[in-house]
Amino acid sequence: MSGERIIYLPLGGAGEIGMNAYVYGYGKPDEERLILVDLGVTFPDMDGSPGVDLILPDITWLKERRDRLEAIFITHAHEDHVGAVGYLYEELGAPIYARAFTAHIARLKMDDHGYSPESVRTVSAWPETVEVGPFKVGFVPISHSIPESSGLVIDTPQGRVVHSGDFKIDVTPVVGEPFDRDLWEEVAKPGVKALVCDSTNVFSEHAGRSEASVGPEIEKLVRDASGMVVATTFASNVARVKTLAEAADRAGRSICLLGRAMRRMIEASIKTGVLDSFPTVVSPEEATQIPRENLMLIVTGSQGERRAASAQLARGKYNGITMKEGDTFLFSSKTIPGNERGVIRIMNQFSEQGVDVVDDSSGHYHVSGHANRPDIQEMHRLLNPQVVLPMHGEHRHLREHVKLAGMAGRTGVLAVNGMMIDLSGNEPTVAEYVETGRTYLDGTTKIGALDGVVRDRIRMALNGHVIVTVILDEDDELLGEPWCEVMGLPEMGRSNASLVDALEEDLSQFIGRAGAKTITDDDKLEEGLRRVARQTTQNEIGKKPEVSVIISRLA
Amino acid sequence: MSGERIIYLPLGGAGEIGMNAYVYGYGKPDEERLILVDLGVTFPDMDGSPGVDLILPDITWLKERRDRLEAIFITHAHEDHVGAVGYLYEELGAPIYARAFTAHIARLKMDDHGYSPESVRTVSAWPETVEVGPFKVGFVPISHSIPESSGLVIDTPQGRVVHSGDFKIDVTPVVGEPFDRDLWEEVAKPGVKALVCDSTNVFSEHAGRSEASVGPEIEKLVRDASGMVVATTFASNVARVKTLAEAADRAGRSICLLGRAMRRMIEASIKTGVLDSFPTVVSPEEATQIPRENLMLIVTGSQGERRAASAQLARGKYNGITMKEGDTFLFSSKTIPGNERGVIRIMNQFSEQGVDVVDDSSGHYHVSGHANRPDIQEMHRLLNPQVVLPMHGEHRHLREHVKLAGMAGRTGVLAVNGMMIDLSGNEPTVAEYVETGRTYLDGTTKIGALDGVVRDRIRMALNGHVIVTVILDEDDELLGEPWCEVMGLPEMGRSNASLVDALEEDLSQFIGRAGAKTITDDDKLEEGLRRVARQTTQNEIGKKPEVSVIISRLA
Repeated sequence: MSGERIIYLPLGGAGEIGMNAYVYGYGKPDEERLILVDLGVTFPDMDGSPGVDLILPDITWLKERRDRLEAIFITHAHEDHVGAVGYLYEELGAPIYARAFTAHIARLKMDDHGYSPESVRTVSAWPETVEVGPFKVGFVPISHSIPESSGLVIDTPQGRVVHSGDFKIDVTPVVGEPFDRDLWEEVAKPGVKALVCDSTNVFSEHAGRSEASVGPEIEKLVRDASGMVVATTFASNVARVKTLAEAADRAGRSICLLGRAMRRMIEASIKTGVLDSFPTVVSPEEATQIPRENLMLIVTGSQGERRAASAQLARGKYNGITMKEGDTFLFSSKTIPGNERGVIRIMNQFSEQGVDVVDDSSGHYHVSGHANRPDIQEMHRLLNPQVVLPMHGEHRHLREHVKLAGMAGRTGVLAVNGMMIDLSGNEPTVAEYVETGRTYLDGTTKIGALDGVVRDRIRMALNGHVIVTVILDEDDELLGEPWCEVMGLPEMGRSNASLVDALEEDLSQFIGRAGAKTITDDDKLEEGLRRVARQTTQNEIGKKPEVSVIISRLA
Repeated sequence: MSGERIIYLPLGGAGEIGMNAYVYGYGKPDEERLILVDLGVTFPDMDGSPGVDLILPDITWLKERRDRLEAIFITHAHEDHVGAVGYLYEELGAPIYARAFTAHIARLKMDDHGYSPESVRTVSAWPETVEVGPFKVGFVPISHSIPESSGLVIDTPQGRVVHSGDFKIDVTPVVGEPFDRDLWEEVAKPGVKALVCDSTNVFSEHAGRSEASVGPEIEKLVRDASGMVVATTFASNVARVKTLAEAADRAGRSICLLGRAMRRMIEASIKTGVLDSFPTVVSPEEATQIPRENLMLIVTGSQGERRAASAQLARGKYNGITMKEGDTFLFSSKTIPGNERGVIRIMNQFSEQGVDVVDDSSGHYHVSGHANRPDIQEMHRLLNPQVVLPMHGEHRHLREHVKLAGMAGRTGVLAVNGMMIDLSGNEPTVAEYVETGRTYLDGTTKIGALDGVVRDRIRMALNGHVIVTVILDEDDELLGEPWCEVMGLPEMGRSNASLVDALEEDLSQFIGRAGAKTITDDDKLEEGLRRVARQTTQNEIGKKPEVSVIISRLA
């Protein structure tokens, strides 16, 4: 052995569903040439990341080794795989490779950030490969819920690694390439050292259903509906959008696409040739002139997002269109865990409008884009890898996936974000633990998830905020009285006086009693004022607030 | 007609699942004698009510008419039906009636608030009735997921109203009275004017399953488990706790109950006689001495609540007990929509500990306490009411329930919180719209949901908080410079200087340029400083913060 090794290091996506970013390396330890597979985002929520605009993987480790980074490969155009390219490109600078549709979407993102479209290079499908450093990488078409998804074949001098990407086994996917067993058998033939494999649906016992199965059900629903039909799904699920549109078309309805992402995706699909036909669509203005029983809208917002078309229709009007009693709203989608409240909110708003809401609880109007348990097992059998490394899952998914591999006598390795795995020997080993985390995009600024900024926001939201101001003159004498402002706290306290009055009185008393040692020492004074403010608020309203103390000394 | 009428007015629970509070009245308009059925709470969340401790119905309407309030009847001891009695008793003052187990729980709550236990009166089951004003009210046992649940028969001079309470049709409920069709037929015999009916599971197509069906499945799971088994369910689901304990007992395991609510409920059940037998339990100290394969814990926290036993075990240790690789954690429960994030969090924490997590996705380990669609229809058939008034549901549930009634040719009325329905004539009519809402318990203070306090908290959480202080002397001259504090905002802005420095510079410049008209006018000065602070923050970090301006004038 030359002392060279293959390493696998997830920086995002292993231990969570979101912000995928997987590093592969080949070379002598600490001199490996590197590639990055996917560079996605995840979405903030009020519980853990209020006010944050987007969550990116922390790529510090990779940034510090950017001279060794050969290239970035994007498996498909979902936001959790491509969403961060525009935000993090500057810090990495390596060329981005993707197939045509994905490259098109990536270029739009790069353009949004002022980068040249030439940083994104279009690659054809396997057997074409890209040679970067010691790697030869090929994009093998695989079925998923967006066009041109690919698994990657990553050949190294020490053997072949397969990165499944997000996938399902679907031989009738409506749009894009059917799952091709022969092709994957061909990939497997030289032997596969490691399969890094999608874990999302490892808890789903039954074989997955094909995209083609939803069309007839949707068509029946649309035909039976009396009023307008509005359907939502992920804009990037071009096959589903096509299925919805064709169902409407066959039912004699005009089709209108609402929401920027929806139009952008269909345009991208047509431009890149992944969609060769799509029914004629009408504009929102034209739609208002069409009798509602002859109309179907396909809209963004399947997750109840407040600004999407669905939520705006639920609140009233969008692009001049309103829903009415007797209309039907179809969720041709599933609710991602954590989004339930938003989805239920718009369901109830539609109910108030007299709109019939249909979701996928019947199992007729949606199929998942990920391989279920038996399909994951089939992928293992097809590729017959020496080792399975589950990815794209929370800890529980990865763990279950390792168990699943073990049941068939395969070696599975549970590697979460930051665990660098050495794949060179007969048994994979943990080479190193790398610090990873999340970077928050906050407005236009990037901050570390643990910087304390968001922690302070959460504290203010839970506890309210008291601001105490005192002014001292040259002789350390109080000018006026301590002054309080409160935000996010009840006005009146237990003593039935205003909370601000109670605070100001107690703070005055504290200063009156405080000795020179306290008054002349900013830290001591601040600490005392904070303590009093917290105690008084606790007495008055039963909770301890966040306190900011501002001491102004007139020199 | 004497001009008297029957009214129904939901103040909580109709248009939501939670904080049930239904008013019934009989008498001349605006002179009706009133009763209240249930007085529950609902739970806050970070999205809409951060920092709030508990949500209570706004009972202003009832408080203003407390001289007409005869009594409060509690159907069962779930928090969303009895949870507010201690918090709102003072404002209503009427006697509380309930069956023994519910009364026991209600008294504990009253005691927590320093009220006499005599304010709660125990009533036996139907055919016993309570006469209050023009009403005769009887508690008819009905199966649900807590002992001694009851539907109420409310007789008025103009006929009988039935309030179903929360119910399911279960003839083998493990604990408590089986659903008794004969009894309900007897109730129906004189004719039922209106059925006010549980809507929770109106979207569940299949007939509900009995509580008795889960025992054998749980026993099998416990027998097959190799390590310790920990199971969680709602503490108040005494039948389930018993089922879990008996499964453990039969599998030869010692049982330990963890969590205050769990022990309190079992004690209440034994004390009030609803539970005649329960396997012997061991203390947490004893549990640590028992081999883990001989032990089963039954713990609180099925909804992932951060302070409950389950979450503490997931984080590490609870009462000296830790979980280990090879143990099993069972959710014998369903996740209430909105609680997914918390539940998934602990599932992943257990996964990190090597614990196998089993939930109800198989459908084996939990059954609902509410009537499914066919069971709701059966209740309609049994009682054959002139009109169905759906309750205990979000808008979409109530609407579907009205449709369901309509399919069988029944009149259904969709009445949400605040709609007063006159039930006297042949057709129910809307008598009045009453203002209703939510009251937040915040620490020890009650505030209106729309008071702005929580809105300010949400804004601080989303936007961060900038505090600007300026001090002006007697001549309206600035003393020192404007002073900024920020909380919940990134430290460094776009210009790579600290945000605070950028703010202070821009604010100084603003004051320098401001004319006397602005400087001498607090409102104008404040408005100007706020505008500059927001604009500078927008320029530096791309978001507009909340701004508090403190102007101190030295007199």
